[in-house]
Amino acid sequence: MNGTRIGCERLRSKVMSAEDAASLIDSGSTVGMSGFTGSGYPKTVPLALAARIEAAHAAGDPFRLRVWTGASTGPELDGALAKADGIEFRLPYNSDPIAREKINRGEMEYFDMHLSQVAPMAWQGFLGPLDTAVIEISGIRPDGSLIPSSSVGNNKTWLDRADKVILELNYWQSADLQGMHDIYYGTALPPHRVPIPLTRSDDRIGETAFRCDPDKIVAIVETDAPDRNLPFTPPDDVARAIAGHLLEFFAHEVAKGRLPASLLPIQSGVGNIANAVLTGLVDSPFEDMTAFTEVIQDGMLDLLDAGKLRMASATAFSLSPEAAARLNADMGRYRDRMILRPQEISNHPELIRRLGCIAMNGLIEADIYGNVNSTHIMGSRIQNGIGGSGDFARNAYVSIFMTPSTAKGGKISAIVPQASHVDHISQDVQVLVTEQGLADLRGLSPKQRARLIIDNCAHPDYRPALQDYYARALAGSYGLQTPTLPGEALSWHQRYIETGSMR
Amino acid sequence: MNGTRIGCERLRSKVMSAEDAASLIDSGSTVGMSGFTGSGYPKTVPLALAARIEAAHAAGDPFRLRVWTGASTGPELDGALAKADGIEFRLPYNSDPIAREKINRGEMEYFDMHLSQVAPMAWQGFLGPLDTAVIEISGIRPDGSLIPSSSVGNNKTWLDRADKVILELNYWQSADLQGMHDIYYGTALPPHRVPIPLTRSDDRIGETAFRCDPDKIVAIVETDAPDRNLPFTPPDDVARAIAGHLLEFFAHEVAKGRLPASLLPIQSGVGNIANAVLTGLVDSPFEDMTAFTEVIQDGMLDLLDAGKLRMASATAFSLSPEAAARLNADMGRYRDRMILRPQEISNHPELIRRLGCIAMNGLIEADIYGNVNSTHIMGSRIQNGIGGSGDFARNAYVSIFMTPSTAKGGKISAIVPQASHVDHISQDVQVLVTEQGLADLRGLSPKQRARLIIDNCAHPDYRPALQDYYARALAGSYGLQTPTLPGEALSWHQRYIETGSMR
Repeated sequence: MNGTRIGCERLRSKVMSAEDAASLIDSGSTVGMSGFTGSGYPKTVPLALAARIEAAHAAGDPFRLRVWTGASTGPELDGALAKADGIEFRLPYNSDPIAREKINRGEMEYFDMHLSQVAPMAWQGFLGPLDTAVIEISGIRPDGSLIPSSSVGNNKTWLDRADKVILELNYWQSADLQGMHDIYYGTALPPHRVPIPLTRSDDRIGETAFRCDPDKIVAIVETDAPDRNLPFTPPDDVARAIAGHLLEFFAHEVAKGRLPASLLPIQSGVGNIANAVLTGLVDSPFEDMTAFTEVIQDGMLDLLDAGKLRMASATAFSLSPEAAARLNADMGRYRDRMILRPQEISNHPELIRRLGCIAMNGLIEADIYGNVNSTHIMGSRIQNGIGGSGDFARNAYVSIFMTPSTAKGGKISAIVPQASHVDHISQDVQVLVTEQGLADLRGLSPKQRARLIIDNCAHPDYRPALQDYYARALAGSYGLQTPTLPGEALSWHQRYIETGSMR
Repeated sequence: MNGTRIGCERLRSKVMSAEDAASLIDSGSTVGMSGFTGSGYPKTVPLALAARIEAAHAAGDPFRLRVWTGASTGPELDGALAKADGIEFRLPYNSDPIAREKINRGEMEYFDMHLSQVAPMAWQGFLGPLDTAVIEISGIRPDGSLIPSSSVGNNKTWLDRADKVILELNYWQSADLQGMHDIYYGTALPPHRVPIPLTRSDDRIGETAFRCDPDKIVAIVETDAPDRNLPFTPPDDVARAIAGHLLEFFAHEVAKGRLPASLLPIQSGVGNIANAVLTGLVDSPFEDMTAFTEVIQDGMLDLLDAGKLRMASATAFSLSPEAAARLNADMGRYRDRMILRPQEISNHPELIRRLGCIAMNGLIEADIYGNVNSTHIMGSRIQNGIGGSGDFARNAYVSIFMTPSTAKGGKISAIVPQASHVDHISQDVQVLVTEQGLADLRGLSPKQRARLIIDNCAHPDYRPALQDYYARALAGSYGLQTPTLPGEALSWHQRYIETGSMR
């Protein structure tokens, strides 16, 4: 601390306390914060801001903000601000339990967005002006450019768009992060857009630091606080079964000549099942793999260590405390095989389609025709958000969704007659996997998909009821392209709401 | 006729009758046909094939095909083959009434696809081999390359992938089509994909003719038959009202500095409302416009003639008989301001996002949260297909959907509590327009969207019932991010099925 990472002399005078920095943010303003899946979010200014908001509310004064981020953050940001009732409007993604509760009680407006579109939409202007950026960084170079932290997210855009900038310089982050990032400055609004010159996951097309007008920097707060690193849960039988089906599918596709032996760049959502698949790849025959994905999680480190993964491109880390310690202790070595990019690049449809990613994402429920609900429990209660799943699923070479076949101890079936909310239409869902099996839906009509999903993916406890619904829909549907009984299609959800079980 | 358009001497010997050509296609085979919205589809070989299929069926022999096209075709293709019960499996789009009826009776498997993905998925291999291509062309050059007809669609891919090729050389098509087309040969499977070098709607990045291995050409059938050109219906009051709201929106966005004065490249779906918008643009203040779209319809010709539209890029024409005659009579002049491209390029997500298209598409129904159903009446009965609407809506700079607020003489509301099928998730639906008004949904949470859609877009006859549903959902929903009553959400559709009216 004490300014040792502030290489630019003229910025040293901007150092102040989190409280002083928070006092520069006004009620009613829009704040663009750093942070992506619990990495690289500001940790002290939001806490000080929450205290300020609580004090204002106690005095009877209104104080609420519009908060934009990269994706989810940590309890010191979303949790604290939501608890203080300080967020009026939130985009583009949230996984904080307190904020989630507020949203689902109707006390906070939440705009759930494709993560690749946040930066361009901020530039389009209809979201309104951005008053303040609060960005965690890991250092300031002599020329005033900013060394990014453990996530990049929308930071470039927030720094460019905001009227004033508050920096949190976090000494917990490794000083060896410098050089890992690739900040592309070639985006623009149409009609000035050009091809993004990236043709391989490991191409570097930008700069290693953020540009920032020093006159906009109103505060630098020095911190030494860890990212919110979620504990690692070893894969259970269900996750291992899903991973097994998927690895078998990859081997089959390679044998058929439809995938190269090194596969294609992997995108993997966050969570235990995704991690189980990555762990499974450690012992797989596939070599020289790459990842072009949103976040680097524990399993990716394992793959790098095993020499199976040549490199990983993402916008953030999402690691367990153990893996974060492992990474931080050896950042200089890992750095050459990792690239963190802005999320408008990590998730760009142009690049995902060009590279031909293998997309693997989780879900809440899928219906028998392959429409996927990733966000809304019982159609109304938001869990997290669509995140980057839409960016990847629609543009992937193979779009895979995976889930345990049941939830809540068997009271919820992940396979339902009709999805209560749709995030991914059946065209964008090519392979569906549960611990029961895998359904390769590519090139199939809805009725062909239904038979496969019910037989291969549904839990045996729910299979007869799905078969019964499907048979009656085949007999009584208004049209038979996608047999549906509207009076009954959402009855499983209604039953769960009324009785606590879909059974 | 008589070979005057066959510039390549060695191919003259391949000329034969449609019946002889049709005899080269076997039962059980997969046939890739040309054709996109009734333009450039083969007109005599499919008819002869249908006769052959009927004869086989009369003799008790099975005869069915897998049929791939660009999009919809004409009655001589989809209609005749469906009537003969000759189609076992169909992709990627259909608007033929006989085929539609077969599909909705469950007698034909239909795989409804994003139109940009047909060619790459055919290359991926999981759709199986392509046995025969049947392609309408307008001429053969001395070097054996093929001058495309009035649509390009997937023809390049069918010619490359098929084991054997049957050509229909149509003398009805203008000889001046030569030079209009731009056939890009730079696509590949990953990991060999590169940026598509197009940065303006009028960039030419390919060749003016199709390459084709002459050894694969097994038949050339000479024809002189018109495209299926649908009659033009002048805009009614509803269409004019929708166009008026939209033009007002464009003017507002230009005034706010969020759109350039020449707008951005226009994409417009097919139909009377789309045409009314184009007609409205003739008298608008916007100059020097371009179109980057799927089809060129009557209104685009009017815009070109009026000097408002600088150029139009598409994959096909979709014209009334009058407009087709006008175009054919003056093709040499129009040719310089039009480009027809493969549909994998006209609809490519990379290009749509780069150019920043203004996407305008129709719909069957939208729900109060802005989810759009473009394909399935009452959730089960397919109308046409998703076509290119997903390619454009997700990647557009502004994604607009438009519809009359009611259908079937007021018995169906286009705004419903919950879409019975979802093709476009709310993230991809930014502006919704009916004759009642326009809802600018950009940057809004679901509840904010609901109020705007009900107030601005719903028909007054249905508005109270929607307000009532929404109020009760707000009071009784499981979660309040997207208030929903699963037991009632699809009841309007059920009521229509039972009573013939949603009222």
